[in-house]
Amino acid sequence: MEKFELHILGCGSALPTTRHFPTSQVLNVRDKLFMIDCGEGAQLQFRKSRLKFSRLNHIFISHLHGDHCFGLPGLVSTLNLLGRTADLHVYSPTGLQKVFGPLMEFFNRQMSYQIIYHEFDAGKPATVYEDRSVTVTTIPLRHRMPCSGFLFAEKPGLRHIVRTAVDFYKVPVYELNRIKAGYDYETPDGTIVPNRLLTTSPDVPRTYAYCSDTAYTPAVAEQVKGVDMLFHEATFAGVDGTRAAETFHTTAGQAAQIARMAGVGRLLIGHYSARYDTDDVLLEEALKVFPNTQAANELACIPVR
Amino acid sequence: MEKFELHILGCGSALPTTRHFPTSQVLNVRDKLFMIDCGEGAQLQFRKSRLKFSRLNHIFISHLHGDHCFGLPGLVSTLNLLGRTADLHVYSPTGLQKVFGPLMEFFNRQMSYQIIYHEFDAGKPATVYEDRSVTVTTIPLRHRMPCSGFLFAEKPGLRHIVRTAVDFYKVPVYELNRIKAGYDYETPDGTIVPNRLLTTSPDVPRTYAYCSDTAYTPAVAEQVKGVDMLFHEATFAGVDGTRAAETFHTTAGQAAQIARMAGVGRLLIGHYSARYDTDDVLLEEALKVFPNTQAANELACIPVR
Repeated sequence: MEKFELHILGCGSALPTTRHFPTSQVLNVRDKLFMIDCGEGAQLQFRKSRLKFSRLNHIFISHLHGDHCFGLPGLVSTLNLLGRTADLHVYSPTGLQKVFGPLMEFFNRQMSYQIIYHEFDAGKPATVYEDRSVTVTTIPLRHRMPCSGFLFAEKPGLRHIVRTAVDFYKVPVYELNRIKAGYDYETPDGTIVPNRLLTTSPDVPRTYAYCSDTAYTPAVAEQVKGVDMLFHEATFAGVDGTRAAETFHTTAGQAAQIARMAGVGRLLIGHYSARYDTDDVLLEEALKVFPNTQAANELACIPVR
Repeated sequence: MEKFELHILGCGSALPTTRHFPTSQVLNVRDKLFMIDCGEGAQLQFRKSRLKFSRLNHIFISHLHGDHCFGLPGLVSTLNLLGRTADLHVYSPTGLQKVFGPLMEFFNRQMSYQIIYHEFDAGKPATVYEDRSVTVTTIPLRHRMPCSGFLFAEKPGLRHIVRTAVDFYKVPVYELNRIKAGYDYETPDGTIVPNRLLTTSPDVPRTYAYCSDTAYTPAVAEQVKGVDMLFHEATFAGVDGTRAAETFHTTAGQAAQIARMAGVGRLLIGHYSARYDTDDVLLEEALKVFPNTQAANELACIPVR
């Protein structure tokens, strides 16, 4: 099966700790890399994850807090040093280009490639990216500033060839792509071989949703209903629920409630507050509400399904 | 003896590797922390080095290349989140405030403290900082843009009390600070006890010089003559000498020549190019020219003498 897996580059929150980098992830969809948020150090963690810069063309920024985007200038400069020529697309709520553009230009007098900024209104869901493998839709969140999650929905792949059947009907190689796409095969003597004899169903498309940063927002569950994997911020433990509400963050228990309401396949928590000496307290709290929960950790690579 | 020691936060160059962070160091002078350059991830490494943000009041930036200053926005924001109130002083060649100021302001709408920018002309040596423990003087370097090294010169400390002598002469406690400062003691009956009977010499003041980034520049040796420890960039191996010259960097062998000409106590090399799988080749090259050479490494803490 082609890749649809998540690399965690950082899963801490704004204050640095000795254990976590600020937020950044990379979703590998069939060997195309999609970066989600780009906290300080993201490019270093990207290298440590043995990912290839040349496969990274799209970066999605949830909101304009530093712990979600301060890694951009370094990454952009590195790609320039490497002599990249392909456009780099950056998707974000309104305002990113205005605040980062002058800095990027100062530090990259001669750019070998172009940055294409795609700014969106974080207040409503919109499909901000689409190719033949995947669509990316924004998920409106509630934070102290405009903020969006992202829903990555894989498109159905091609049907799988039944090797014995195509051999039996002597299907020529140049017909295989049409057959994978669902067409029947016509033999030289005019017989129609129906596609269902030659192929099996494509893999079930996979889905991944990223929700950070946000106050507890039950409406989010509607939009991420049934996804294979949900990353939801779990900045605080329940005992710090008041602080969570004040700062428009979510507790681990609330994140698990969202996962349960949405009936997701798996919950991944992260964006841990620096106040906890260990993240176990957050994981344990979530597990009580939603058993299929996992705690994100730096450099983990997690297949979405 | 009071502290005068160097913490290496990062010693790589512009391209990230799995082994090195971009450049940042912290010199601890008698428990005051002076940051030298602030590459991406400096605040994370600062925490890992178990240093205290509250003791950091002065940051010295050598030049406006990203790998020497992209850690500033994150560090500034973290200090703000922590509710810092003390001024933060940032010393740099001309231009830093203009390029970083708007970004810092956008991401820190309410600042709990003030950043005081001290910009200098990198073309000539100047004392840019002085307190009762140390002076910091710029060292003009030759790079692709205005760039300065920094010479940290400790001021002489107080003389050391000879415990048996002050007991013998029954010197009262409130006289000790004057005596440490070099004054004689007058007994109640008017006898003058010369200071040399009561004290020994203060520790010899220590010196540390930081030179990065720079083309091989023999004139630098004049200014760093006899320092206890010299950090000199050694981006390339001798075999890549042409590339070093083109990019205004130094080879490991050239760095060691500067150390030898200057007669320094010890040479510390760093700012390693990403092209080498190991830094041993650079260390070995320098050792042949200047035996007391050490290779910088992340999170090392090196007493200057």
